[in-house]
Amino acid sequence: MILGQEPILLTPGPLTTSPATRQAMLRDWGSWDAQFNRITASLRRDLVDIVHGGDTHVCVPLQGSGTFSVEAAIGTLTPRDARILVPDNGAYCQRLLTICRYLGRDAVALPIADDQAASAAAIDEALTRDPSITHVAQVHLETGAGVLNPLAEIARVCQKHGTGLIVDAMSSFGALDIDVRSMPFDALVAASGKCLEGVPGMGFVIAKRSVLEASGGNSHSLAMDLHDQYMYMQKTTQWRFTPPTHVVAALRAAVDQFLAEGGPTIRGERYRRNCRTLLDGMASLGFRPFLAPEIQAPVIVTFHAPADSKYDFNAFYAAVRERGYILYPGKLTRIDTFRVGCIGAVDDNEMRNVVTAVEQSLSSLGIRQVAPLTHPA
Amino acid sequence: MILGQEPILLTPGPLTTSPATRQAMLRDWGSWDAQFNRITASLRRDLVDIVHGGDTHVCVPLQGSGTFSVEAAIGTLTPRDARILVPDNGAYCQRLLTICRYLGRDAVALPIADDQAASAAAIDEALTRDPSITHVAQVHLETGAGVLNPLAEIARVCQKHGTGLIVDAMSSFGALDIDVRSMPFDALVAASGKCLEGVPGMGFVIAKRSVLEASGGNSHSLAMDLHDQYMYMQKTTQWRFTPPTHVVAALRAAVDQFLAEGGPTIRGERYRRNCRTLLDGMASLGFRPFLAPEIQAPVIVTFHAPADSKYDFNAFYAAVRERGYILYPGKLTRIDTFRVGCIGAVDDNEMRNVVTAVEQSLSSLGIRQVAPLTHPA
Repeated sequence: MILGQEPILLTPGPLTTSPATRQAMLRDWGSWDAQFNRITASLRRDLVDIVHGGDTHVCVPLQGSGTFSVEAAIGTLTPRDARILVPDNGAYCQRLLTICRYLGRDAVALPIADDQAASAAAIDEALTRDPSITHVAQVHLETGAGVLNPLAEIARVCQKHGTGLIVDAMSSFGALDIDVRSMPFDALVAASGKCLEGVPGMGFVIAKRSVLEASGGNSHSLAMDLHDQYMYMQKTTQWRFTPPTHVVAALRAAVDQFLAEGGPTIRGERYRRNCRTLLDGMASLGFRPFLAPEIQAPVIVTFHAPADSKYDFNAFYAAVRERGYILYPGKLTRIDTFRVGCIGAVDDNEMRNVVTAVEQSLSSLGIRQVAPLTHPA
Repeated sequence: MILGQEPILLTPGPLTTSPATRQAMLRDWGSWDAQFNRITASLRRDLVDIVHGGDTHVCVPLQGSGTFSVEAAIGTLTPRDARILVPDNGAYCQRLLTICRYLGRDAVALPIADDQAASAAAIDEALTRDPSITHVAQVHLETGAGVLNPLAEIARVCQKHGTGLIVDAMSSFGALDIDVRSMPFDALVAASGKCLEGVPGMGFVIAKRSVLEASGGNSHSLAMDLHDQYMYMQKTTQWRFTPPTHVVAALRAAVDQFLAEGGPTIRGERYRRNCRTLLDGMASLGFRPFLAPEIQAPVIVTFHAPADSKYDFNAFYAAVRERGYILYPGKLTRIDTFRVGCIGAVDDNEMRNVVTAVEQSLSSLGIRQVAPLTHPA
């Protein structure tokens, strides 16, 4: 780490943003001012275009973290008597179930091991078995372990059954190609501070216009009523309640850089390169990833914690931080892991450097045994 | 306006912030990192101290605009069978009524003219007449017209009746002295981007600890469950869901400046000076304020629109903006008004300058008749 420089975040959001993105926050904007509202309008258009939403889909931004937008999507775009299937392979799937419980939506969990991807065939079977299910709420990239779920296949199954699909694409939007023409959905939810590389503070829902326009009166909450937010924005070009103006301006700058870089395909390539470099480097130190390569998304990698009894996450975190990198704790309950993000305004050089920082940290902490003594079959 | 300089916001938030506040957003923070969580903890402590909350009250920050925190306070801190009296003298009081309707809380409006303050005597009478009322939800400073409501007297009435009091102090917190020891309340809600002069993106609730701790299970919403946010923060020092890290860092810088300036008394004096300078200057151009001086809070002033038939708000707004100042539209439905804020990182020089900008704008638009032809009695 260069002296005086702040540590690099290798976390799944907030993440390290570019100087241009942060500098976009150096001015104040009036929320009634046309110049600001043109930023909102252009962002809404660009975000729909990223998923090829044409005129069938519209983007509704919402104040708050990504979870606020997920709750708003479920609360607004499903009727109060909806029955929602939630394929569950991790913490963010469980959060969907919690949201359904708060909102009084009837939810059906489809349990999946946390090192396995959701299966379109299992969802197909569940929808066939229980035709009273009206919606599927699907996490695209389960950040808990970093699993990529097969969105295109799941979307086709939902389409076949005429089931509404709500996608939590928090950690995938901008990094993985999503095309609503081949992966039809009622709503897809993401946020400013993830793979678009903006700063945190707002989410957005890309909703099927016909579903959104028919959703008046569903919402349990004024603040999270997406229909009301949409109608007001269409009429006035403004946000209903004070927007996080600086966060919006930073997201505009971040999306400009995203488009200049080449969109999701090129950004995804950078992240894949980051991920590969990280996995190779960590493997050379003896670290094993939790997931099999075919379901490992290039966004966040879960590693098994070192087997050495001297290992303690907090001490390890502090040692790596001192060397310029901020890691993330594991989110699995049954085994000890930690996570390293591959996203943000970072390239494969940073990935090589964090591996060096990990190596030095292990050494300074006297951790010798990284891989388990007996490798499980 | 200095060439190349951005216009000054004379709006009730977002407002013009100081360079130091904006520059605090130039670094990225990990939401799991202890350094960031110390910022959250110190802010929570300082915000409680501003109202002399000691150990009886605690601060719970929440992502989103101020309205999100207002809804969270009502949804979490009143039981589902609460009956809530809402003294109504403007748009933000009506928003409280809308929130109650969304949340299924039984609300009783106490209508007041929009150029009159709420009356503690009328609230006393309403509570005596209807002992089934469990809570009063009171806007301290109704930003619709700029009316200051007598919070201390209303708090005493609530205390006498044993009625819970929830205060929307969005536009008053930081500008007017609020002391929970003499104005007891269950909860007081404000936000980052108002008189604390931070940037918008988070709100906070200063809640009576005993009420908050007993409020588990009330909330209609996961995202807005203040009890859950509080319990998680106490246990982990972290926010439950991704915090708006840059907004939090900017608020820390803004509160540092607020305390260095001398706290609410001194900030209130600056705003009162701003307000007086504005009122005097605008009077010299023939403008009449909508409110009587005794209920005019020194935060935002509503002026009657010029009587001249050539007046059009959008053209007037554009002309003043070109001269470096952003005004705010009126929010009254029955008469034509516009508003000018006195808050933000501005002093009375700016107030003199905006009067000059208004004068030049009137002249360039050919607006001669400012005061009404016959002054109402």
